[in-house]
Formats: sequence, structure tokens, C-alpha cells
Amino acid sequence: MEPDKLTDLEDKAWMREALKLADLAAAEGEVPVGAVIVKDGVLISAGRNRRELGKNALYHAELEAIDGACKALGGWRLWQCDLYVTLEPCPMCTGAIINARIRRLCYGAKDPKAGSCGSVVNLFELPYNHKPQVISGVLEEACAERLSGFFRSLRERKKNGER
Amino acid sequence: MEPDKLTDLEDKAWMREALKLADLAAAEGEVPVGAVIVKDGVLISAGRNRRELGKNALYHAELEAIDGACKALGGWRLWQCDLYVTLEPCPMCTGAIINARIRRLCYGAKDPKAGSCGSVVNLFELPYNHKPQVISGVLEEACAERLSGFFRSLRERKKNGER
Repeated sequence: MEPDKLTDLEDKAWMREALKLADLAAAEGEVPVGAVIVKDGVLISAGRNRRELGKNALYHAELEAIDGACKALGGWRLWQCDLYVTLEPCPMCTGAIINARIRRLCYGAKDPKAGSCGSVVNLFELPYNHKPQVISGVLEEACAERLSGFFRSLRERKKNGER
Repeated sequence: MEPDKLTDLEDKAWMREALKLADLAAAEGEVPVGAVIVKDGVLISAGRNRRELGKNALYHAELEAIDGACKALGGWRLWQCDLYVTLEPCPMCTGAIINARIRRLCYGAKDPKAGSCGSVVNLFELPYNHKPQVISGVLEEACAERLSGFFRSLRERKKNGER
């Protein structure tokens, strides 16, 4: 198989892992966003959005995954690590990707409201001291459907007077 | 006393607390940056840069302070909280300030390399869903001197062959 095709298949496989984390977040009543960090073909850490139940503004999927990877690898430079996340990172998480020197970022759905890898702004085009390789739109429809399905179900529950 | 003068005095008093955290970081061999979060005139949480010893890309002063404030107050919305930090926040920390709905940000020295509240970019001018009030240059000289003194001493130690 051509190397590009293989990379594409691998990206989709890891994004499916991130989607499982998004599904776990949804089951907990959280906006469904999931992330995994991979090094040399091995899953190093995972994260999911836990902002509401965790009562913490920092509990985004990417930050949880980066925190886990730093702890697992014993250092702050994740320059051999690739991050897969179902939603385009917000400014906080995009900045964390820069700070952690993540090698490669693959994300699924775009986030027109807070996405900072091309939507509101592309922080990677500014002169910070690190630029990861970026692949967008990996399993984009599945990632976006998780979010639209979650918000649709939230609206329906509200309409029916449920909390 | 005029309200503006009083606010200015209070800002300087809290920045002196943040400077103590920066000094603690320097004593630990870390780039000296310190932060405190204040609500209704009470110090709620404190943070310092701990990236090297903590071996974690997320261990910036502001993130530690925001994490502490969310835990202390039991929620992710810090909309009655003011953050004091000795150095202009990086994109990760500026994004965290947006995510946490911090009411007011006071910072000391500018950061031409990574500062994201006016230096590399001003993220607060972009259409995210929150904009704090921002006061820059509080005890700017003292905050900048902590950093230049730290890097000067680092260069001297390197020149003398110390590790």
C-alpha cells in the first residue's frame, strides 16, 4: 500500500479511538469531544471533555491527553507524539499543543465559534516557536454528527421540560 | 481616595503577591512567573511556573491558578475572579482565561515571543465568547527584572561551566 494511504488508514483508526472517548463524554452528559495521543504507533494517553462534571474550565479533552502524555513519558516535550481530537482545538488547547511541541495534530470537525487552527484564527500561522503538522477533516462527518446529535437531544429534552 | 487610585494600589498589592510566586519559581530554577486569583478582595488560588521540575507542558502559573480557583470555588466559571500574573499570558493561558470567564486580567511584563494579549496577537480582540477587562504594565519593571535577572544568571552559570 502507498505510504499516504497507510497514514490515512492509521489516522482514521486513531480517530475512531478518540470518537469512543467523545461517546463516553456524551454518556456523561458532556459536550462530546475526545482525544488520544499516539507515539510510535502506541496509544500513550486519552482525554475527554469533562468540564461540567469536573467543574473545571481546563478539563478539555486535549489538555487531559497532553497532561497524561507528559506524565506517561516523564517530560514536557511531546515532539514525537501525535494528537488526535474529534473537534478543532480552542485557543487554550491550540496553545497547549504549541507549548508541548506536539509533532502532528489530526482533528475531525471544524469549530466555527472557538476553533483556533483555522476557524476563528490559525494560531499555527503566527510566529510562535513551534508549528505542528496539521491534518483536518479526519472522519469529519462522524465527529460533527456526535456534536449535532448531542445538541439536538439536549434541545429535545429541554422542550419536553426535562432538566 | 479616588476609586481609580485605590484600584491601582490594590492591583500593585496583588501583583506583589504574584511576584513572590515568581521568586519561588526562580529559587526552584524555573523561569520566574507567578500568578494569583482574587475574588472580592480575597486570594483564592496561586500558581507558579513549574514546567521543568514538574515535567509538564501545562504547568504554567496561570493554569495552576485557574485550576486551583475552579477547585476552590467548585465551578468552571470564574466570572467574579481577577487574575494577576507577572508576565503577559501565552496563547494557552490566554485561552484558559477566556474559557474560565475571568473578569479582569492584570499582567506585568510584556512577552514579545509568546504573549497573546497584545504582543504576538491579541486573542481578546477576536470573536471568542468572552473578553475580560485587561490592565497591562502593573509593576512592569519589577516583573521584567525578575526575568532578565534569571536569564542573566543562567548565562553566567553556563559561561562558568556550571550545569
